[in-house]
Amino acid sequence: MKKHQIDAYMVPITDPHIGEYVPDHWKCIEWLTGFSGSAGTVVVTAGFAGLWTDSRYFIQADDQLKGTGFHLVRLTIPHTPEYIDWISENLTSGNTVGYNGKVVPIGLHRKMCSTVELKGIKINIEIDLIGTLWKDRPSLPESKIFEHQVKFAGLTRKEKINNIRKKMVVNGSDFQLLTALDDIAWTFNLRASDIKYSPLFISYSLIGQQDIFLFVKREKLSDGILNELTDHGITVLPYLKISDILSEIPSGSKIYLSPGTVNCWLYDSIPDTAAKLEGISFPAFLKAVKNKIEIGHIRNVMMKDGIALTRFFIWLEKTIGKDRISEVSSSQKLESFRAKQEYFMGPSFATIAAYEAHGASPHYEPTAESDVELRPEGIFLLDSGGQYLDGTTDVTRTVALSKPSPKQKSDFTLALKGTINLAMAEFPLGTKGYQIEVLARKALWDNGLNYGHGTGHGVGFFLNVHEGPQTIGTGASGNLNVIIEPGMLTADEPAIYREGEYGIRTENLILCVHAKETEYGKFLRFETVTLCFIDTSLVDKALMNEVEIQWFNDYHQMVYDQLSPFLESTENEWLREKTKSI
Amino acid sequence: MKKHQIDAYMVPITDPHIGEYVPDHWKCIEWLTGFSGSAGTVVVTAGFAGLWTDSRYFIQADDQLKGTGFHLVRLTIPHTPEYIDWISENLTSGNTVGYNGKVVPIGLHRKMCSTVELKGIKINIEIDLIGTLWKDRPSLPESKIFEHQVKFAGLTRKEKINNIRKKMVVNGSDFQLLTALDDIAWTFNLRASDIKYSPLFISYSLIGQQDIFLFVKREKLSDGILNELTDHGITVLPYLKISDILSEIPSGSKIYLSPGTVNCWLYDSIPDTAAKLEGISFPAFLKAVKNKIEIGHIRNVMMKDGIALTRFFIWLEKTIGKDRISEVSSSQKLESFRAKQEYFMGPSFATIAAYEAHGASPHYEPTAESDVELRPEGIFLLDSGGQYLDGTTDVTRTVALSKPSPKQKSDFTLALKGTINLAMAEFPLGTKGYQIEVLARKALWDNGLNYGHGTGHGVGFFLNVHEGPQTIGTGASGNLNVIIEPGMLTADEPAIYREGEYGIRTENLILCVHAKETEYGKFLRFETVTLCFIDTSLVDKALMNEVEIQWFNDYHQMVYDQLSPFLESTENEWLREKTKSI
Repeated sequence: MKKHQIDAYMVPITDPHIGEYVPDHWKCIEWLTGFSGSAGTVVVTAGFAGLWTDSRYFIQADDQLKGTGFHLVRLTIPHTPEYIDWISENLTSGNTVGYNGKVVPIGLHRKMCSTVELKGIKINIEIDLIGTLWKDRPSLPESKIFEHQVKFAGLTRKEKINNIRKKMVVNGSDFQLLTALDDIAWTFNLRASDIKYSPLFISYSLIGQQDIFLFVKREKLSDGILNELTDHGITVLPYLKISDILSEIPSGSKIYLSPGTVNCWLYDSIPDTAAKLEGISFPAFLKAVKNKIEIGHIRNVMMKDGIALTRFFIWLEKTIGKDRISEVSSSQKLESFRAKQEYFMGPSFATIAAYEAHGASPHYEPTAESDVELRPEGIFLLDSGGQYLDGTTDVTRTVALSKPSPKQKSDFTLALKGTINLAMAEFPLGTKGYQIEVLARKALWDNGLNYGHGTGHGVGFFLNVHEGPQTIGTGASGNLNVIIEPGMLTADEPAIYREGEYGIRTENLILCVHAKETEYGKFLRFETVTLCFIDTSLVDKALMNEVEIQWFNDYHQMVYDQLSPFLESTENEWLREKTKSI
Repeated sequence: MKKHQIDAYMVPITDPHIGEYVPDHWKCIEWLTGFSGSAGTVVVTAGFAGLWTDSRYFIQADDQLKGTGFHLVRLTIPHTPEYIDWISENLTSGNTVGYNGKVVPIGLHRKMCSTVELKGIKINIEIDLIGTLWKDRPSLPESKIFEHQVKFAGLTRKEKINNIRKKMVVNGSDFQLLTALDDIAWTFNLRASDIKYSPLFISYSLIGQQDIFLFVKREKLSDGILNELTDHGITVLPYLKISDILSEIPSGSKIYLSPGTVNCWLYDSIPDTAAKLEGISFPAFLKAVKNKIEIGHIRNVMMKDGIALTRFFIWLEKTIGKDRISEVSSSQKLESFRAKQEYFMGPSFATIAAYEAHGASPHYEPTAESDVELRPEGIFLLDSGGQYLDGTTDVTRTVALSKPSPKQKSDFTLALKGTINLAMAEFPLGTKGYQIEVLARKALWDNGLNYGHGTGHGVGFFLNVHEGPQTIGTGASGNLNVIIEPGMLTADEPAIYREGEYGIRTENLILCVHAKETEYGKFLRFETVTLCFIDTSLVDKALMNEVEIQWFNDYHQMVYDQLSPFLESTENEWLREKTKSI
């Protein structure tokens, strides 16, 4: 820092594509601090080294930062760059803050400018201290790209590009720059495994009305796929060639890009003579609304996932207290049940197998160090999901491993009421996620309880398990203009965390569908598509109203009806017992 | 337009202070088109003349624009400048749009620039066509300013200015520019009657850490008040002198202003060498949170208002079908009952006395032309409020003038459930209005019903009846960062409108108060402070749950207990009947 004459150095958790899961090559914060969460920012000055993260990671960060010299700074509002204010307050006029513009989105860079430049603080975006210091840095991922067949995707690559081009015409843009890896994988019906948990490959793309560029390392493509892409009029160029192509964009062109995923280096490659139009990328909107083929697959994948979960919970009930089971071994066992299902490709995120107090950490991931044995007592929270060629799942169930306490039952039921009430919502077309989120929180709020994260993220189709643009949250983050549309698949996961005791969460995926049309307009509703029993031993029926009880019993009947044809008779008996009416 | 070489002329409904109620001098749209609503924008080109307004005014505007040549353009989203997109689409590069920058806030001007300038359309903000054409234009209002006594206001002018200065220190500003008339009236504990319905006076103010300027016509002030202001270190200067003082602001100063209420002319008076900090004005935040003295007065004023309403409804029930009553005459009668209460100063807005189909127009105001007779049948919606020295009220009651139909009862009850459920909300400190608004809509949405306006506006204290910064709305308008805080007074008015049939609305004012503190933080709730019976003949109890029925009966008990000590015995009997448990 002294050599580069900078007074503060900022390290974001992001890579050049600003995705959620980052290849090892770009895991700078983990290398620097040991913190392995998915959200966080490091700021280092001569006198202070801090990691800013949100409430999901308070417990985990506290633990992982011990002895590193890095202080945990707790974000007041999740996903906000509060460290920018800190930099602004702790540096003085004439000081410089530095960072590597290749891993910082232009949107964040602008926020930094608008705050610190007011105070006369300078910014240097060409400082890559980590690259210099990190000697045994892992190389870039090199996985092979494969075709995601149209029988799964529902639309051909050509149809998708045509749909993007139609949107470009409406918005008056000549080029759509694609920087988010899920946008690119979806557009080209291609997948790979460069990124853990998400079937993506490192690349950029630029789509014009004439030209289509895909920037990716040649060696990742088979000759067959390369030929097919070329036949479809797609020019394949090396990954970093994007900068040159962008710099040659004709004067007067309009290029549409997303300031949240375009890094400073790419942004600065675009000549000033081109107009930049900004907004959520067209693929992001298009892929969020699942097509009919995808929806058919989603219903099927939910059955497969439900069968795997049912078999896992049967195994757990039979084995606990007899053979040794730990958080880690149970996660492995669950993955083995999913692996037996057709088209399974791997977990969609790090399984949160969280026993007792570990459950109070919303994004806990058991490691060799933290792993504990599951005993026939207490609360076990299991949040997991699968990547299948025919869809992506994400489901949380919380089970009691012995007779639960009244407080545990009350907590479970109040959070469950949230899951149910959001699932039952009916709302006019045009409604945004933040308008209905309180339905998931009301029962908790009424009892002085709350949870520190959003209620629902979008879910991709054999893509990211957390995928926008829609969100059902408090409105503190996410794009507030995005409405919930028919075909969108979103999580529904209210929760309650008792630090030092346990965590409770029931998470289903809900598909937005048409409900009715009246003189007041079109109304939408949700269909719960996740198929897995909910532990009735944790339900305090006295806390539920008739409508909630009816929903709960109907849901259990549906779970049984859908899964039982695929289960053995002893499994069926077990599930019938688990899903009987309360 | 030809002479000034402009291709489109935009006329906003606002005056130089961008308040809701505009003195006759600035009622340009009403003079031009006949439209008398409170929200709207006119755009005229060579081939088209249109008035853009929101759903509250569709019926009224349709009616008032007939035969004027002006077309009604229905806003898709209330309070959004959709006409800017229209201008952008209907003018071409090289064209010019003109308007009078003295009545356009800088915030709106920026939106215009960012949209139309992209298309090469020019803007001229110095065109005042109305001023040139309007020959018999009313003069500026000349009402006398009077002191709002500290026994009502709760804080002295000096205390208020100190509180503003403390906020300026925190935000680092040297000057607070005040342009909204309610901010100025509140800060100086002064009132007048320049504006219909709001006790305001035409003025500007600039508050520094040393100087305090009040820009107002000298003749409006008594010698006594002028001397007092001078004693308090306040420099009184002529109204339009503000521009000169702003232009002399020292280089390097930081001036805090609100882009939504600062007009272009004022904004451009500030030298470029001064930094402009922007946000909601400090008085707006400070006055929204009522102090203890004010809250005491609010409880008292609600009793006075409730007594007036009770007496009105007794009179209505006795008189209807015997003597002739019309919408206008009933409004006058109601005002006469309010006028008998201590400290009454006038109505806080144009009474919406809306019989049958007129009720379907949310902001209907009966005029000599529209006035109809009330018969002992159908639905009567009465939305009214009073300005008292000790507070401002706003209340809506809908009554059946004969036995209502099942559909009317169902509509009334579903909207009432909304009023009740919002009133019962408990929520953590930090919650914004848009997060809880669905509680007011849920019962309607579940039944395919909806209403096209927000649910709750803030209410001033002997100030504007619609006064921010908080709002309980859909998030489509208003400042999304404003949280609901203890001491804020807000309306709660879900509704249902049946075009051509009737309108239904039950509106109470709700005061935010502390509810409880748990390990999950501070929780807030509302206290319903409006005191007036709700017509039980319109309630379909079968549609309500136990908790709602309990709230309803408790509310009626409170209304009776609070009002009965001040009523005659026959009035008491009548009210006891109206408030008996369902």
